[in-house]
Amino acid sequence: MLEEPSLVLLETATLNALQAIVGENRVLTDDDSLRHYGRDWTRFYQPAPSAIVLPGSVDEVQAIVRLAADQKLALVPSGGRTGLSAGSVACNGEIVLALDRMNSISDFNPMDRTVRCGAGVITEQLQQFAANQGLYYPVDFASAGSSQIGGNISTNAGGIKVIRHGMTRDWVAGLKLVTGTGELLDLNQGLIKNNAGYDLRQLAIGAEGTLGIVVEATMQLDRAPRDLAVMVLGVSDMSAIMEVLTAFQAAIELSAFEFFSELALQKVVEHQGLQRPFETPCEYYALLEFEQADESVLDQAMVLFEQCVERGWVLDGTVSQSETQAKNLWRLREDISETITPWTPYKNDISTVISKVPAFLAEVDAAVKKSYPDFEIVWFGHIGDGNVHLNILKPDALSVDEFRAQCGEVSQWVFEIVQRYGGSVSAEHGVGLLKKDYLHYSRSPLEIEIMKQIKKVFDPQGIMNPGKIFDL
Amino acid sequence: MLEEPSLVLLETATLNALQAIVGENRVLTDDDSLRHYGRDWTRFYQPAPSAIVLPGSVDEVQAIVRLAADQKLALVPSGGRTGLSAGSVACNGEIVLALDRMNSISDFNPMDRTVRCGAGVITEQLQQFAANQGLYYPVDFASAGSSQIGGNISTNAGGIKVIRHGMTRDWVAGLKLVTGTGELLDLNQGLIKNNAGYDLRQLAIGAEGTLGIVVEATMQLDRAPRDLAVMVLGVSDMSAIMEVLTAFQAAIELSAFEFFSELALQKVVEHQGLQRPFETPCEYYALLEFEQADESVLDQAMVLFEQCVERGWVLDGTVSQSETQAKNLWRLREDISETITPWTPYKNDISTVISKVPAFLAEVDAAVKKSYPDFEIVWFGHIGDGNVHLNILKPDALSVDEFRAQCGEVSQWVFEIVQRYGGSVSAEHGVGLLKKDYLHYSRSPLEIEIMKQIKKVFDPQGIMNPGKIFDL
Repeated sequence: MLEEPSLVLLETATLNALQAIVGENRVLTDDDSLRHYGRDWTRFYQPAPSAIVLPGSVDEVQAIVRLAADQKLALVPSGGRTGLSAGSVACNGEIVLALDRMNSISDFNPMDRTVRCGAGVITEQLQQFAANQGLYYPVDFASAGSSQIGGNISTNAGGIKVIRHGMTRDWVAGLKLVTGTGELLDLNQGLIKNNAGYDLRQLAIGAEGTLGIVVEATMQLDRAPRDLAVMVLGVSDMSAIMEVLTAFQAAIELSAFEFFSELALQKVVEHQGLQRPFETPCEYYALLEFEQADESVLDQAMVLFEQCVERGWVLDGTVSQSETQAKNLWRLREDISETITPWTPYKNDISTVISKVPAFLAEVDAAVKKSYPDFEIVWFGHIGDGNVHLNILKPDALSVDEFRAQCGEVSQWVFEIVQRYGGSVSAEHGVGLLKKDYLHYSRSPLEIEIMKQIKKVFDPQGIMNPGKIFDL
Repeated sequence: MLEEPSLVLLETATLNALQAIVGENRVLTDDDSLRHYGRDWTRFYQPAPSAIVLPGSVDEVQAIVRLAADQKLALVPSGGRTGLSAGSVACNGEIVLALDRMNSISDFNPMDRTVRCGAGVITEQLQQFAANQGLYYPVDFASAGSSQIGGNISTNAGGIKVIRHGMTRDWVAGLKLVTGTGELLDLNQGLIKNNAGYDLRQLAIGAEGTLGIVVEATMQLDRAPRDLAVMVLGVSDMSAIMEVLTAFQAAIELSAFEFFSELALQKVVEHQGLQRPFETPCEYYALLEFEQADESVLDQAMVLFEQCVERGWVLDGTVSQSETQAKNLWRLREDISETITPWTPYKNDISTVISKVPAFLAEVDAAVKKSYPDFEIVWFGHIGDGNVHLNILKPDALSVDEFRAQCGEVSQWVFEIVQRYGGSVSAEHGVGLLKKDYLHYSRSPLEIEIMKQIKKVFDPQGIMNPGKIFDL
């Protein structure tokens, strides 16, 4: 019911001017397009863009931005729209600038291990391209099949390999950004080492389109990992999981360290037709992944496993014997989000430093259960990075609106706990519209004021994705 | 002759106010102190600070900055003063704020693998602290024994392990910065994942103190590497060295890939009493380092070595059989800079993308030799990152002043070539005073204008290290 686009009209002269830039059939104003391009995977906002524009080149993007700047029209850059914080939602008559057509991959250089991507390149397309060259693009997450590189950069996308390979930030060797005045910044040009002045590239990464539109990037690729082994361990409690992390990290280069709760496992096994990793029920499970350069790594992992069992941290465990088994173990973690969708879950993506996760989780659990003892909490996430995803399932007895209202309260408690722990109100999903009212739980008034001033430097008219992250 | 401090006087009331903040004996105005604290390892500027202040706490730094802001007095933050671009030179009556006393290491957390460092912690002190915990601080370079963490962060120090471990930027989990108004920013608080608004921490890193003073940092530590092997290979020419890099990187995780020329080797062998790695003279040498997790890695390296010989890329080579041998091979590379100091070398620290290095070097060589055939060029550097250090030795026949004048011309040619290659005029040494007139060869007028505007956001009075990187 929230999903009908409102009718917002652009002046005919403006529509004509946009058509003159991109071609007649690349300015869309039909209801389906406004609905499709006006929102992301967040479902709390009514899409209401005034038009969708599909430029095919950097020049066209610049011309659109200049037009918008002249007429003070708000622009929302749009990638795969898989965001979970409404960073690319257009619900206020904005023009959506969709980068879908700028999806070419070019200028691959095997020695530099870099490749040039249009902002509209799909994450999976880049992963596949890298694989075809015997290389690896290591940023990976559930929406890789539809998210776009420009969006990944604008939200500094994280995912399941951050513990070893970092965030999207770490793979952007060069970046082209069209500022709010329509000018083009060509930042860092693919260099590994460049200490000539402020690294403006870093500012644009994670700025959610509020400083400008990412139109192209030179992405760094990595050596392809060989023979990834996956281990799933059942642990006695949350502090045990952290001890396991420390023990393994001291000896083995982990490429993933994920976790999920027994409830998450039950749901995913039941609904995806998967096998439990082992019969022993445990409060939490850790999923570890590492490269087996040779047999000694697996031997070492087995020794560590036994030590963890002896210490009482680990109750049971299994390790993949084949690529298929590894994939199936990964599904236990990766299919959780999709599995719980029918319960209209409340979702929150938060982080603390790693060592504080157990106490942090316990506090959130207690706060929720005190007021809402019937709420089912599904925990999972990238615990090796201190990043947990809190999911609360809607009880059948509650309407969606009642549930949302109660979850509003929950958010308040959660963010207060986040603040007390010095954590982040958005670990990897960004702020967008969804979390801007909570930004002050993680950032000081001075920091927020500095951000606003910096936005004015890049976007003096305030037309670039206005109202996202903060209000000016 | 350039090294006598000028006499610049602060008003007595100001001196008294500074003494009231830090204590009487921590405001220095004697000639020796002004000379010592007024300059860095660059030797082209006459130190002329008005006073040296040695605060012992963040509060004291804030009080000093507030005083300076009130009276519009310029401040130069000062760490180990090992910079090579005059980023911490005070030659214009500035007050030097030296962070030497803020050198405590605290709050080590073995699970997070983080530790809190005052800005004045010496790099080697942090390396040693990490080693004592069985961990590793991987940023390393020639001046690690005197450079300070605050300075490393402010210049985004690089060094010899960047190919695997990145720059200082990659190891700063949290950062406290005192802005130009004396306010304290506590940025990122040690989090691995934090997408809550612009990452202002990234802006402060590499800003050379122009946005504020780094007073404290939470540094990330890494797993300690085991059994590092060092290989030195003699190659036929520069393109061969790049082929060797590509071949090794496809199979082995290299922790260093350095290079030096035959002339560099000759100088260092002669003056440091070291052995040549092997008798075959080669145009260039590559030094590779990698972790031997087990024997198979060395076996693989030997196979790659043989393949490189078969292809004609490598003429000869050696590999360390012990830690001592590894250290001695490293000295062939690391002792070059010190070895050539008596020749009053012209130095330049530049980069391109890796694949363009051979053509880039050839152009620089040709440009220098065309006009100055008697100049001896010593090349070395971090070629695995595209970062080369150009060193030209002063011919005995030339006076220092004549040589410097001619090198001014050389700089012009070099930076024109850098610009044509889309490279950086400062790969890892920063801009400071030395390169600000050349910044436009790497950064567009718009980028420079944006940097200036950003500086005004953090430092509205323009008192933080004014005149470094750019003039306002």
